[in-house]
Amino acid sequence: MIRRSTMKVVLSINAGSSSVKISAYTADKATSPQQIAEAQISGLTAPPAKLKYSRYGKSMAKDEQVGKKVHVQDAAFSLLLDTLIDDGELREIGSKKDILIACHRIVHGGDYTDSRIITKDTYHHLEQLSDLAPLHNGAALGIVDSCMKQLPDATNIACFDSQFHATIPAHIATYPINPGIAKNSRLRKYGFHGLSYAFIARSVGEFLNKDMGKLNIIALHLGSGASACAIKGGKSWDTSMGLTPLAGLPGATRSGSIDPSLVFHYASDVGKLSPASTKHLHISRAEEILNKQSGWKALTGTTDFGVIASSDEPQHKLAFDIFVDRVCGFVGSYYVALEGQVDALVFAGGIGEKSSRFRDEVVRRTQCLGFSIDEGRNSGRLDQVIEDIGSYDARHRVLVCQTDEQFEMARAATEKSEVWK
Amino acid sequence: MIRRSTMKVVLSINAGSSSVKISAYTADKATSPQQIAEAQISGLTAPPAKLKYSRYGKSMAKDEQVGKKVHVQDAAFSLLLDTLIDDGELREIGSKKDILIACHRIVHGGDYTDSRIITKDTYHHLEQLSDLAPLHNGAALGIVDSCMKQLPDATNIACFDSQFHATIPAHIATYPINPGIAKNSRLRKYGFHGLSYAFIARSVGEFLNKDMGKLNIIALHLGSGASACAIKGGKSWDTSMGLTPLAGLPGATRSGSIDPSLVFHYASDVGKLSPASTKHLHISRAEEILNKQSGWKALTGTTDFGVIASSDEPQHKLAFDIFVDRVCGFVGSYYVALEGQVDALVFAGGIGEKSSRFRDEVVRRTQCLGFSIDEGRNSGRLDQVIEDIGSYDARHRVLVCQTDEQFEMARAATEKSEVWK
Repeated sequence: MIRRSTMKVVLSINAGSSSVKISAYTADKATSPQQIAEAQISGLTAPPAKLKYSRYGKSMAKDEQVGKKVHVQDAAFSLLLDTLIDDGELREIGSKKDILIACHRIVHGGDYTDSRIITKDTYHHLEQLSDLAPLHNGAALGIVDSCMKQLPDATNIACFDSQFHATIPAHIATYPINPGIAKNSRLRKYGFHGLSYAFIARSVGEFLNKDMGKLNIIALHLGSGASACAIKGGKSWDTSMGLTPLAGLPGATRSGSIDPSLVFHYASDVGKLSPASTKHLHISRAEEILNKQSGWKALTGTTDFGVIASSDEPQHKLAFDIFVDRVCGFVGSYYVALEGQVDALVFAGGIGEKSSRFRDEVVRRTQCLGFSIDEGRNSGRLDQVIEDIGSYDARHRVLVCQTDEQFEMARAATEKSEVWK
Repeated sequence: MIRRSTMKVVLSINAGSSSVKISAYTADKATSPQQIAEAQISGLTAPPAKLKYSRYGKSMAKDEQVGKKVHVQDAAFSLLLDTLIDDGELREIGSKKDILIACHRIVHGGDYTDSRIITKDTYHHLEQLSDLAPLHNGAALGIVDSCMKQLPDATNIACFDSQFHATIPAHIATYPINPGIAKNSRLRKYGFHGLSYAFIARSVGEFLNKDMGKLNIIALHLGSGASACAIKGGKSWDTSMGLTPLAGLPGATRSGSIDPSLVFHYASDVGKLSPASTKHLHISRAEEILNKQSGWKALTGTTDFGVIASSDEPQHKLAFDIFVDRVCGFVGSYYVALEGQVDALVFAGGIGEKSSRFRDEVVRRTQCLGFSIDEGRNSGRLDQVIEDIGSYDARHRVLVCQTDEQFEMARAATEKSEVWK
């Protein structure tokens, strides 16, 4: 029996380049976090921004336009927080004081191998890490700052997208460049989407009733940012992103891996600072081009892969085929990395979870490895966290996972004994 | 019966970054070129340069130091030419007038899909192509220029390393970047080592007695420059190099594919011109770092992979493991690209032909795909152009090909009807 007084309200905060999402949970030391509310503001870079809000699993607001002032992540966060506090029906959160744990998704965690309680020292170190990921860490840090000021009773926890990949062996994480410079400038493969991969690995392990230490999967987190991960013995063995999220698969606005000399032929002055740079964050023109002005948006004009997947327009078809080709390349590569001992190929992320056509194409093209799809299961409704969509007689399973980075943060935070002291 | 008078002397010229190699053949319209001499000057960037010369298959000079003046490709070529002409025993070449066909290996051929007789127009176009490959085309063009002046009776033919890859489909060759800029600046995957892959494909087809149109192989050209190629129906379907030879596998001094944003964290001013640039050829600092100051030389201090493969020193072991890992990744990827219909995995190039240990590692790690090595055959002497080193009961063959780009150039040139007019 759990006494009400041991319950804490946990907030998981995820600031993307154009959106902020917060999920609220109740949790205690002994049980998994239970979601009580979820709120999101999207369209920060394409105003008017819009609010989505649900309480106790019931939608309360959808596509509700928010005021003009909300065009940066920090303002969006404040509005989301107010939405939760001002909702009289949401019993667990009556004031800012009720929030006792705030989990922050930080893309680049450098050498951190685990989530961290944010102290002044940690915060300073996080600021330094922004050098490695100026395009990705900035927004989250602003919200951390707000929380430290606005939620005086909360323990702030940094959850890193890179931490799951700390287990990648040296011969895979090392770039064949000058080792002295690599060490000084911390240049190696870090990998990202780790909160998602941690969620996927544990969920698949439970679904297959398999010890994590023996679980081998090829996981695909395919959204507007996309990556692949070879998980060996429950741990990251290799992943397609690198020093930054730019490497590997293309995304909505990212090129993914291209010839590293390409950008020098793309435009002059690519080494110069982009106007998006600030005094502290130095972003080269090249990084901006390859992260923000490429990908299937550049090829087709839309970031919506659903539109691309259902279109016969030649540029859309090209973008679709490019993505299938690059994903299949990683499936083959990671199949070898796992020496063929693969429990499942797992699709996750917006595209992985929603596009049955994309899944069908990838599995059909990797049939030679022993993957096979069941058309009925693939095109049916996917309700569970894990759904099996493979043929019954196939050598390896094919699964879809409704991944949940917000939950993963809350879970990881509440597993830390320090937060219960 | 072939009349002596229809015979022509063909020269194949291959200018690398630090060496120049020429091979002389006799050929006529109906038969394959027969090698009569081969000469090479190496060490241009690490003087004193050294000469190697053989006539009618017999070694005449080896590691012979040449004068101080020979430190550029063009001077090396002149010396090699004199070596052939001055050798009284080499009956077929008494003067410059005896050379009727000169084949030039040009790394970047842009949109050329076939070798080309070099006219003034072609030459001008080749100069323009140097924009795309300033580090690679420059040396060869200087020698083309010399030949046009010094060998007035010769037909000069440009053989492109990229031409074999003209068959790569659009969804593989297209980078997910702004299509307008890609078109204007000719930014796409071109691929290289094509002379080698053409030689490999034909030799393997003959060895397996298989129609080229049905030949599917995964070919690995692994030397100080290294690449992989998926050959489908005898044609290039995909290859690891890209817009330039930098993409894909690491090499002796090349990083291969890395996070495209890495170089901006490696050094400041990477967009600036390198001191190696000339008025016509613009080479960025970044391209110089990633092409010339990376790879296993940067990791270990040596460019000699034989030393690395036989050393237990940790940095050497790391470099070896990195190369194995990256090569295996492409084998898996291309296995999927060929839908598992693979006639053979083929090793070629200096490392592919010489390092039995490297072959053993790669095949062992790709065993799950049906490759298997026969230890005896792998460690034995490899005399033939193609040697089978696979286990007798394996699903797919494993071959070693002693590739010969020089011969491939001569063959392609003499197959052109124009040269016999």
